[in-house]
Amino acid sequence: MRTDEAARVAAPDEAVSLDELRLAARNHGMPLEALRYDVTPIGMHYLLTHYDIPFVDETTWRLAVRGRVATPLVLDLAALRDFPAVERTVTLECAGNGRARLLPRPVSQPWLDEAVGTARWRGARLTDVLSAAGLSSDAVEVVFTGHDHGTERGVEQDYQRGLPVADVADVVLAYEMNGAPLPPQHGAPVRAVVPGWYGMAHVKWLRDIEVVAEPFDGYQNAVAYRERMSADDPGTPVTRIRPRALMVPPGYPDFMTRRRYVTAGVVTLTGRAWSGRAPVTAVSVSCDGRTWLPATLGPAADRYAWRSWSATWEATPGEYTLMARAEDETGVQPVDQPWNVGGMANNMTQRVEVVVRPPGGATT
Amino acid sequence: MRTDEAARVAAPDEAVSLDELRLAARNHGMPLEALRYDVTPIGMHYLLTHYDIPFVDETTWRLAVRGRVATPLVLDLAALRDFPAVERTVTLECAGNGRARLLPRPVSQPWLDEAVGTARWRGARLTDVLSAAGLSSDAVEVVFTGHDHGTERGVEQDYQRGLPVADVADVVLAYEMNGAPLPPQHGAPVRAVVPGWYGMAHVKWLRDIEVVAEPFDGYQNAVAYRERMSADDPGTPVTRIRPRALMVPPGYPDFMTRRRYVTAGVVTLTGRAWSGRAPVTAVSVSCDGRTWLPATLGPAADRYAWRSWSATWEATPGEYTLMARAEDETGVQPVDQPWNVGGMANNMTQRVEVVVRPPGGATT
Repeated sequence: MRTDEAARVAAPDEAVSLDELRLAARNHGMPLEALRYDVTPIGMHYLLTHYDIPFVDETTWRLAVRGRVATPLVLDLAALRDFPAVERTVTLECAGNGRARLLPRPVSQPWLDEAVGTARWRGARLTDVLSAAGLSSDAVEVVFTGHDHGTERGVEQDYQRGLPVADVADVVLAYEMNGAPLPPQHGAPVRAVVPGWYGMAHVKWLRDIEVVAEPFDGYQNAVAYRERMSADDPGTPVTRIRPRALMVPPGYPDFMTRRRYVTAGVVTLTGRAWSGRAPVTAVSVSCDGRTWLPATLGPAADRYAWRSWSATWEATPGEYTLMARAEDETGVQPVDQPWNVGGMANNMTQRVEVVVRPPGGATT
Repeated sequence: MRTDEAARVAAPDEAVSLDELRLAARNHGMPLEALRYDVTPIGMHYLLTHYDIPFVDETTWRLAVRGRVATPLVLDLAALRDFPAVERTVTLECAGNGRARLLPRPVSQPWLDEAVGTARWRGARLTDVLSAAGLSSDAVEVVFTGHDHGTERGVEQDYQRGLPVADVADVVLAYEMNGAPLPPQHGAPVRAVVPGWYGMAHVKWLRDIEVVAEPFDGYQNAVAYRERMSADDPGTPVTRIRPRALMVPPGYPDFMTRRRYVTAGVVTLTGRAWSGRAPVTAVSVSCDGRTWLPATLGPAADRYAWRSWSATWEATPGEYTLMARAEDETGVQPVDQPWNVGGMANNMTQRVEVVVRPPGGATT
């Protein structure tokens, strides 16, 4: 495998490149005001496509299930729908979320805070499909292959990811999103949904499931999605989502700077928090970076769906940087950046710049 | 009106700023492979929101129709649906499309080529609603106001646009997009659709229609959407869409550079072309920037919907910059940039970088 073009890190004063802008114009985050929805409407959910969005005819689509199984299967959409259907509400987050806020900045899809969304995914349980095929006792990983094709740092590939057999219990082979057939951009006709894991595991436009007896060493597992501290560090695999809270930016924005304007008084701050590692136990907010006030958590939702939170802020005139951070039993979100070469699985605390105006005062 | 912060133009060597990246992460273009669809699926249509996406309760939503009319109206959604429904397939394009390809670069939403999409819009005819209210004989413009609120170069505002009465004939007050209720991000519950005009005219989250007896001088008409050659040039208003063709990038991409890889042989190039000024009469393609070959136009569609085209390319190994350009009776797309301060209504020809490999040759 050619991996001679390592992921690049921008110089400390290097601004965003045309390559990064091209990716930002194609892929998109979730506008943070959409944190108000339990389930993100189609078109506001974040979306990252490594190559092109392929166009798969659902009438000729087939899913092969093969490798270390007793009976290889080839399923069409009707056959997949014949398995018992499950529906899970799941929060997906890109492993690169927050990357463009790191210093120095890893050069890739330049996410700020918005690479997240929550959807209702309906489909067949992977475990039911694997049971029908008869999993061999020496099965170690399940390799998902999509129809999307391209090159990445010199390696031509269909998008592929291996997932340990120990982690398949919750996986859904989803053919519906929010009660409708999957939209093309979210993997039509069928994608993998791996609740609790960062987005790279949820292979879209699924065409092949191969059960293998050794850990998969394809590009996306062995090269791309790893936390490394230097280019020659083999690093550790990116797996489950670290805890994160995001706030609906209060008040209204300036078009160009996105700075927020709020009128002094009691302001209710709201948002969502999630973790793929353990249930969120607390969210706290700060308007000065020193003192943290506990937020009130909303009702617990599906284990891998985000949870609402709210907090009250007595806003007095001035300029503030609001922060919110989530906590689970594995830890609390860091205020300082947790840097790595690829900017992967970084959950640095959100910062929202707010100007509080006196009541009836000047608007800007 | 404070307009003391004029639109900024980047220095010739100035890279993309964090402000521009924030906008690119929120707003999104249409991935160009979606040019294959007659009607763009929800979630792939381009989207520009000046401020935040507001959340409007359709059960309490009302539309005021007032000003120079005989009988002011207040319509709820049922009342609007009582007017005869029309459905139009309309291509929308942002007036800033292509802005980030200009040199020097106007600093605003940094679009490359993708700020376009086509949808089926269903709703009431504005002319029917104005007839019900009784248009006064001194009516000059119709001012649309949305629920979206923010500041722009120091001016706090609800998003507002005036449209000359002479141009209202085709306007739809749309409550459905592609056969379903408008999604929140496209203006739910009702938006204006002004076929043939750039996106700034299609006011979303509509709450008020005021008929006025003088040209409207609000920010979006008088300051923002103008073609100016310098900061103190009053310029001319941005109105109807100039002709443009876009090509589906052939082959497959590299993740980071978006460069395309194609195998040598006969390649069918396909795309769409549109103009809000006059019907598209021709599309031509070039692989060397000097010779232009005519493309074949597909069937004519709705007057303001894009039209398909295709062309055959005998690709031989090498590196190419492919171009496509559209023509209508008002002119042909320029290969060199048509620059202005805001980067408005620029229709510079698309360029697609392609590497053609020999059959069976190295992949990258």
